[in-house]
Amino acid sequence: MILPDTIVATATPHGFGGISVVRMSGPISKDVILSVSIPAKNKKKVYLKHKTVSFVKLIDENRIPFEDSLVTFFQKPSSYTGEDIVEISCHGNPSIVNKIISVCCIKGARVAEPGEFTRRAFLNGKIDLIQAEAVASIIRSKTDESVSLNFKMLHGNLSRLAKNIKKSLITLLSKIEFELDVSEDSLQPTLLDDSQEILADCIDTIKRVLKNNNYFRMLNEGANVVICGLPNVGKSTLLNCLSGLNRAITGPHPGTTRDVVESTILIGGVPVTLSDTAGIRSSDNEIEKEGVSRAEEKMSAADCVVVLSSAKEEQSVGGFNLSDMRFIHVINKADLCNKREVDKLKKRFPDACIISAKTSFGTKALLEKIREHVGISPSLSTSVSVVTSRQNLIFKKILKHTQSALNLISSSPTVPLELVAFELRDALGQLDSILGKTVTDDILDGVFSSFCVGK
Amino acid sequence: MILPDTIVATATPHGFGGISVVRMSGPISKDVILSVSIPAKNKKKVYLKHKTVSFVKLIDENRIPFEDSLVTFFQKPSSYTGEDIVEISCHGNPSIVNKIISVCCIKGARVAEPGEFTRRAFLNGKIDLIQAEAVASIIRSKTDESVSLNFKMLHGNLSRLAKNIKKSLITLLSKIEFELDVSEDSLQPTLLDDSQEILADCIDTIKRVLKNNNYFRMLNEGANVVICGLPNVGKSTLLNCLSGLNRAITGPHPGTTRDVVESTILIGGVPVTLSDTAGIRSSDNEIEKEGVSRAEEKMSAADCVVVLSSAKEEQSVGGFNLSDMRFIHVINKADLCNKREVDKLKKRFPDACIISAKTSFGTKALLEKIREHVGISPSLSTSVSVVTSRQNLIFKKILKHTQSALNLISSSPTVPLELVAFELRDALGQLDSILGKTVTDDILDGVFSSFCVGK
Repeated sequence: MILPDTIVATATPHGFGGISVVRMSGPISKDVILSVSIPAKNKKKVYLKHKTVSFVKLIDENRIPFEDSLVTFFQKPSSYTGEDIVEISCHGNPSIVNKIISVCCIKGARVAEPGEFTRRAFLNGKIDLIQAEAVASIIRSKTDESVSLNFKMLHGNLSRLAKNIKKSLITLLSKIEFELDVSEDSLQPTLLDDSQEILADCIDTIKRVLKNNNYFRMLNEGANVVICGLPNVGKSTLLNCLSGLNRAITGPHPGTTRDVVESTILIGGVPVTLSDTAGIRSSDNEIEKEGVSRAEEKMSAADCVVVLSSAKEEQSVGGFNLSDMRFIHVINKADLCNKREVDKLKKRFPDACIISAKTSFGTKALLEKIREHVGISPSLSTSVSVVTSRQNLIFKKILKHTQSALNLISSSPTVPLELVAFELRDALGQLDSILGKTVTDDILDGVFSSFCVGK
Repeated sequence: MILPDTIVATATPHGFGGISVVRMSGPISKDVILSVSIPAKNKKKVYLKHKTVSFVKLIDENRIPFEDSLVTFFQKPSSYTGEDIVEISCHGNPSIVNKIISVCCIKGARVAEPGEFTRRAFLNGKIDLIQAEAVASIIRSKTDESVSLNFKMLHGNLSRLAKNIKKSLITLLSKIEFELDVSEDSLQPTLLDDSQEILADCIDTIKRVLKNNNYFRMLNEGANVVICGLPNVGKSTLLNCLSGLNRAITGPHPGTTRDVVESTILIGGVPVTLSDTAGIRSSDNEIEKEGVSRAEEKMSAADCVVVLSSAKEEQSVGGFNLSDMRFIHVINKADLCNKREVDKLKKRFPDACIISAKTSFGTKALLEKIREHVGISPSLSTSVSVVTSRQNLIFKKILKHTQSALNLISSSPTVPLELVAFELRDALGQLDSILGKTVTDDILDGVFSSFCVGK
């Protein structure tokens, strides 16, 4: 058996602070730390005990002490990675952190790749692939809701659900295969009913899990809302107004071009980035053309587009197809209208939001409409969901196979059992891959490349 | 006795990363962590043992788990602060860190002020004030040399030196006071010789310690070199050339105004920031006036000013007083001259550096000259030195008192012993205050306010 490398990296965020932590994992991590440390005063030798802190002086190649450290040792397999781990807690200074990593590398460790600690935890069976993905998501989480969701993932809520589906399908498959052996014609009536029930249950569960994905994806990645419209309809005023209404994570600030400003606010725990765009109009001016093209690019990537027009001008909305669910038609400057005019607008544009960005009139209703269009439903936050696009893709495949199996059983009086078994085996294969039981290096690379170094 | 508050703060740099550490110190820190945690699976209760890691689930006000953590307990007095300390290692996410601090505060802790952990270490006699200052300096250090110097400070090199001086002066003072009791006239000849020797020794030591201050201050704070001169003499080219020659910590980048660019390079371990300035010339243009005024401001704060002129133009250096040690006269564009012209320049401006920023000719010599003018002497790096301005000020006072004592003893045939004793007592008072034996809250506030929160 070839022993794995011993890897080392800084585990704490980069920068200056009270303390930083360097983490080392692998078969020689204990030897390495013993060779780069001497005991603090009053001790004869450095003594490492499982889950215990030792106070040491770290020494360089010339055995000159350069730092006092607290070293914690975790003996395999009771560690994060399942290997021997040493955590070195030092003063929070990048020069010191780099020096520690460098002396460890001289003694045989190597710098860890992004996510390599968690990859080893997965490879050593400490966590499954869904839980590994949850670790990355927890660290990236920007809101409390997102942290809370990913904590549940880490604790295996989705893993358990996948395992339960797998258990049901295996039971079903074994019964069908027994049936195939003894009778090749059709299912026993009771088995037929059982199968339909089991498959319908699985399909329900999978659908529920997939339905929550949009909200949970947004919790982790945030949503984008673009505000567009002709010049001078009040786009910037609306952006400032909405930022003031909800707690802004980032205040409105000028972007890289004169024409794009952004602000991120929280709606139902989801970080929603609002972008103001250049006024959409045809123009021969090169700079304006560039602005318009940026706006169009942003709109195509948006979760929701607010098409703004002014109550006091011709209601041109620039050729947007307002029947598209992604678009919300908003009529601004209601403060300049009397009640009769507002009523007239309501009649003419029954689906539009009529607001005044200047006085905040109608803007709470607009936020509610944005929440609805984007698909933010805080009530779902206690449920289980797929989170990553990998999980989403695989659960969709599982749904397809179980759906086909159910259709085959339900539709025909003589059930083609071989075909049902085939679909079930495919579904089980996908379940193994979501848990990481059967997984290629390419997939692992994809999962772990998004990690930070040191995790 | 009033028990101190229990304080809590994040100890690691702010940001997203593998792990973050929250630190809590004070009499109820153990109670607080027990009230916000439940055991990880397979354990009945959370059990905290000195210097040992426990795996727990942290819970919120509603006892709902929100994070898995490794908790390390340090029992007083064997901890950094000398109080009970709990270190909570969690996922490296600001939302989680904030939540942990918040649940601890609900249970009776309060958020720590900057430097409050180290202040408690000082107040509980774990370290003296010089060592406390070294902790702040270690964290702020930007180069390996600076880390290494401050590590020595933390280990009490300067403290030991101050204590040795104190010991000598106390011995001397007690002899003099004995002499004052038995004979009021003059010193015994042997005591006279002894006194002179002891005081001369102390003075030598203090002078040496003060002399290194400039270099050590620069190691910690860096040095500033400003390049100025008429337009088009090659200021930017020289800046780029020097940045390329030495390892640049920050590359040349455009500053906030069109006219100022900066680059930080290492010279003898000192981070030296080179600034290019607007061309110095009288101008009626408002924008240029602003640029010139910024340049003048920078020059007055610089450790060294490079006055650049061109070999091919009139040698106007804009009214700089080149006899000032802070100025280095540099003549650029030697690549455009033949040997005869260069020799002529050398004769006319014997103190000037003749270089070509384009071909790098003469620029190594220029770096050496900058090193010399700024006062960077790497050979001193193994010595003890005062580091902070507080230490500098106090050691100067000690020097003054010991010098006066020596003068009194040496100058007069009948030594005024009372006056000598008076000076020695003053010197001893200053030694106590540098070690923090006698120190006011104001001074402590000054020392610790420069710390980061969590240290």
